[in-house]
Order: sequence, then C-alpha cells, then structure tokens
Amino acid sequence: MQYDQRMRILGVDPGLSTAGLGLIQTDGKGGLQALDWLTIKTSPTLALPDRLLELATDLEEFLREAKPEIAVVEELFFSTNKKTAMDVSQARGVILVTLKKAGIDVLSATPLQLKTAITGDGQADKKQMQAMVKRILNLSETPEPADAADALGLALFGAYTYRFS
Amino acid sequence: MQYDQRMRILGVDPGLSTAGLGLIQTDGKGGLQALDWLTIKTSPTLALPDRLLELATDLEEFLREAKPEIAVVEELFFSTNKKTAMDVSQARGVILVTLKKAGIDVLSATPLQLKTAITGDGQADKKQMQAMVKRILNLSETPEPADAADALGLALFGAYTYRFS
Repeated sequence: MQYDQRMRILGVDPGLSTAGLGLIQTDGKGGLQALDWLTIKTSPTLALPDRLLELATDLEEFLREAKPEIAVVEELFFSTNKKTAMDVSQARGVILVTLKKAGIDVLSATPLQLKTAITGDGQADKKQMQAMVKRILNLSETPEPADAADALGLALFGAYTYRFS
Repeated sequence: MQYDQRMRILGVDPGLSTAGLGLIQTDGKGGLQALDWLTIKTSPTLALPDRLLELATDLEEFLREAKPEIAVVEELFFSTNKKTAMDVSQARGVILVTLKKAGIDVLSATPLQLKTAITGDGQADKKQMQAMVKRILNLSETPEPADAADALGLALFGAYTYRFS
C-alpha cells in the first residue's frame, strides 16, 4: 500500500462511554482531507456485554459507509483507576476485532507517538492537539469533541507512518 | 428461563493465550451433565488484533455446534502485571461481544463467587476446583487443563444461579 494512492484512513480513540472516530482521505498527491469526525457513545445504564454489543454494532454501521483501508487505534495508558482501565481495555478489544472482521489493516500508536507526530510535543494537551489537527487538515472550525480530534490525529499518524516508513 | 427446562450453559475462563470453555446441559430433572470442555489458544507470534480475530473466529465456530442458551464469563482480577491485565481484558471484551452476537445471555462471576459456589471455599486452589468439578459432574477423570475445569465450574455456577435466584 502506498501513500500516494487515494486511501481512507480511520483513527480511533478507544473508550467504553465514548469512542472517537476520525476519517481522512489522501488525495493521491500528498494532500490530506478530513472526511468525518464523530463519537460513538454507549448507554451507561446497560450491562457491560450489552454496551460492548452496542459499540460493535455502531462501529460496524460506520465502517459500512466509511470504508477505510487502514485504522490506527490508540494504545491505552493508565495510571489511575483499575476498573476503568479494564472496562476501556474490553472496549478496545471489541474495536480491534470489529476492524479486523471488516478487513481493515490495524496499526497502533501510543499517546506519546501521537502527540509527538502531530504537535512535536510529547506532553501536548487536548487544546494543542485540536489546534494542530485543525491547522494540518485546514478545517474552518476547531474539531470537537477532543476525542474526535484525537481520532483525526491518529488517522494523520497513520498517513505519516505509511508515507515515511 | 427455568432451570428445570433442558438447557445448555457455557462457562468461559477468559484469556488471550488460552481461554477455557466448559459446556454443561441440564437434564430437565435437576441433573447436570458435562458435554464438552476444551481450551482455545491464540498464536503468540501474531499481532494483538490478529490474535483477537483468531479468538473470535474459534469461539464463533465452537458456538455454532455448542448452541448454549446462557454463558457465564469470569471477571478478571489482577494484582500483578498491568500489560497482561490489559491484554486479557481486550480478549474478554471480544469474548463478551461474540457471545452477545450469537444471541446468548451473558452472566458474570467473580473468582470468589466461583470458588465459593463450587467448593465452599473462597480460597480454593486449582486442584480443589478440578476435584469438585469432577465429583459434581460425575466425570471418570479429572478435567484438564485447569482453565477448562474452571470453565465447567463457571457453567455450574450459571446452573445454580438460575436454579436458586
């Protein structure tokens, strides 16, 4: 797969309550265009297996329209609540298997790789990420919410990785 | 759903390298019969998304034959390696969503609930679990490996829960 082909790249910021999705397209001349960015939410009142099913179903529906060739899914980094870490990890597993079943190549990026690639600063905060994603993709407004902006950043990371690797 | 109907119950001991499966059937008169117990393994040389796809595919294949109405999936408890905890959590998410997609009701049990229900001892070790599962299900040999015996124990926990709740 070559970066100079027309290619759709999906970034995914994994989560159980909220997962961010960002879809970009290369124009075949080294240019990049944001096609869509949004979040998938699951109902906190449902049991975990039902929430995971909701996540898988909503992602499958998105993929049927979006048809990306590559996805970049952020790796999880937790220093805080173990229960949250395990819930979000279960959601990430569902996201990975849903992407693979749709025939999509899946890459990973750590938060540090993502921030460094997009802003040049491994300690960048959400506002810096949103500002750089807006600038790189030449958007008229700041991409919201931050989860969706992160997902666009992950898609850009995928484009850079394929270009320079 | 009533315990006194003929019903198939699947226990699942989640894991990424090895997941245990144990299938039992109620006979409609309060009796219980072990139908199958085995493990699903994934290739450690593959990338995580590919291992999760392998796990989902193997579990789907098992479910097509096994046709359980209920599954009991053990909850994870980790005090040690965070990387392992997150990998196994991702595998558990894949297991839960695969079961739900097959139309199966999914229950959870903690290790403490499982050990207490099967052996009466919340601190029981693997050998005690295997011995009690063998006795309850009237097996001619000790169920091996321990992951599969645990899975049979989880299926028994499901039978008890439906009977007494």
